[in-house]
Amino acid sequence: MRWMRCGGRRRRRLLSVVARDSKMADTKGGLFAKTVQKHAGRAKEKILQNLGKADRTIDDVFDEYDANFTRQQTNANRLHKEVSNYLRCCRALHGASKGLYETLIEVYEPEWVGHELLYAQAQNSDMLWTDFCHKLQDQTLTPLTAYQQQFPELRKKIDKRGRKLVDYDSQRHQLENLQRASRRDEYKIARARDALETARTTYEVLNKELYEELPALYDQRIPNVASHLQTLYAAEATVMAEFSKVAKEVEAIADKLTKECAKGTYKVKRTAAPRPLSSVEASSPQNTTNSPSIRPTISAPVAQNKEETGRPYEEIEFEDKKVNGNVSQPARTNGEVLSTKIPQGGGLADRC
Amino acid sequence: MRWMRCGGRRRRRLLSVVARDSKMADTKGGLFAKTVQKHAGRAKEKILQNLGKADRTIDDVFDEYDANFTRQQTNANRLHKEVSNYLRCCRALHGASKGLYETLIEVYEPEWVGHELLYAQAQNSDMLWTDFCHKLQDQTLTPLTAYQQQFPELRKKIDKRGRKLVDYDSQRHQLENLQRASRRDEYKIARARDALETARTTYEVLNKELYEELPALYDQRIPNVASHLQTLYAAEATVMAEFSKVAKEVEAIADKLTKECAKGTYKVKRTAAPRPLSSVEASSPQNTTNSPSIRPTISAPVAQNKEETGRPYEEIEFEDKKVNGNVSQPARTNGEVLSTKIPQGGGLADRC
Repeated sequence: MRWMRCGGRRRRRLLSVVARDSKMADTKGGLFAKTVQKHAGRAKEKILQNLGKADRTIDDVFDEYDANFTRQQTNANRLHKEVSNYLRCCRALHGASKGLYETLIEVYEPEWVGHELLYAQAQNSDMLWTDFCHKLQDQTLTPLTAYQQQFPELRKKIDKRGRKLVDYDSQRHQLENLQRASRRDEYKIARARDALETARTTYEVLNKELYEELPALYDQRIPNVASHLQTLYAAEATVMAEFSKVAKEVEAIADKLTKECAKGTYKVKRTAAPRPLSSVEASSPQNTTNSPSIRPTISAPVAQNKEETGRPYEEIEFEDKKVNGNVSQPARTNGEVLSTKIPQGGGLADRC
Repeated sequence: MRWMRCGGRRRRRLLSVVARDSKMADTKGGLFAKTVQKHAGRAKEKILQNLGKADRTIDDVFDEYDANFTRQQTNANRLHKEVSNYLRCCRALHGASKGLYETLIEVYEPEWVGHELLYAQAQNSDMLWTDFCHKLQDQTLTPLTAYQQQFPELRKKIDKRGRKLVDYDSQRHQLENLQRASRRDEYKIARARDALETARTTYEVLNKELYEELPALYDQRIPNVASHLQTLYAAEATVMAEFSKVAKEVEAIADKLTKECAKGTYKVKRTAAPRPLSSVEASSPQNTTNSPSIRPTISAPVAQNKEETGRPYEEIEFEDKKVNGNVSQPARTNGEVLSTKIPQGGGLADRC
């Protein structure tokens, strides 16, 4: 009903939309067809050239430029890869050096001469490594990356020039075929000549630019390599000299510790002999309730952490006060007798 | 039949074999039973001690020795791990440095000033790294490994002493129980007393040895750490100073190259402008068979390897002799015209 009422205008609008869409589809289809035709033409031309069935325009000078460009890019990539790897290994060695110093500082007891100095040198070394790795990154790797990133764009341009040259050869051969045809079609020949001229112009614009850009870039390889070498090894010369100083300091610390140790400064005071166990007689019935080997003040069970109970020998003191020394020593033991732990709530009757 | 005939001697021999086997089985079985009994006795004693149902002989001095030993072993292991890792990273950096130098030498063209010097410094650096890594291995890591390897054997001895002490406590409690029994069995008591005495003696032999060995080993930690520090950082001080010298040399090479390059020594001679393509007129019918853009002396197909055809610009020469220059140049091109390749056996008629 509504369609019928406002039919005329609506129908016209609909028709115009359909027409526009079909036009767009035509344009798109045309573009697609053109692209396919272009690619097919190029592929055909290249196959014929490679099979030796068609001649090919060559430019020895440009081939040199191209070869040099390829070599330059390869070299830039290789250098980038090697410097990256070098930096990665420097960072790994920094980590290893830091870890080693940290362990040394923990192993090197605070009482030993030079502990503070060792700590200072560890800090020094860490700072030097950090600085060196930053320098390698900022002064060598980053410029090298920037240098390397110029190549892909230019490679695209070189490839485009190559395609345009194939187009030119293709158009040239088409024109030749038309000219050699038995019935000459002057209109077609004129069109082919125009197409050839267009291909030639497009190619020559690109070619001219590349003839300027490629040798200029190629010349840049020398200052670039020189600059990368300079920044990397200048940083290395400085840091290595500093590392050498740090290492000499640490060596001096070690020498001093060796001398101090040789004097016997850190020798552990030893217990003359181990305390004997309660001998058999100690467990005889007459003193089971009050044996000198029992230390009733310590309760069991005790959760022992060996690592935490460790103390330097200097602090050792025998807990004689805890041993019930009022009872006379058993006949067969000399001096002190080892204590035994008694459980908290457990009388002797509890034991089995 | 045969069995019946020589039965007597054979049967006796068989019986004796059976008897011997059964005896061996008995001995083995007895040993096995004894071991099980020993382990069960120890386990029971330890459970009772841990539950607080039995007293335990303790030795504070030995506990200190044990804790120190554990700490010393942990430190030795940590140091070994860190030095190993440090050496591993040094080797990786050696590899990275070598790879970097190799690439630099290949990138650094033989014509550039200082190429020979760079090669010499690369050799120097490689030699220094090799020497340093060997020194780290031989003078630090190997002695550290030897130091570290003393610990497991002693740890076994400490553990054995611990087990023997549990045995002693266990025997002691058995004797106490027998002595507290309502009907005293003097024979059993005497046997238990003997067993206790044996346990005590076994323990005390081990204990006495450990009382000498543990503090002696503990004292060794100081000269050991000092020695590892000394050898490692002495080697590092030397090699780093040498690396610094090498790096300074490389830096000087780079500086010289920069200066030489700034003078324009290595600037590529450029072709003033790219050679133009044959223009449209060149392909007109009147000169299709003898176009100046065609170079008939070169055959196609040609397998080109871009990497191999690359030459420095200095060597470039235009192959004018190959261009068929006898025909007058086309009107619209200036100077030389680009050549085109003609296939070997293909006349113009072959092309399409």
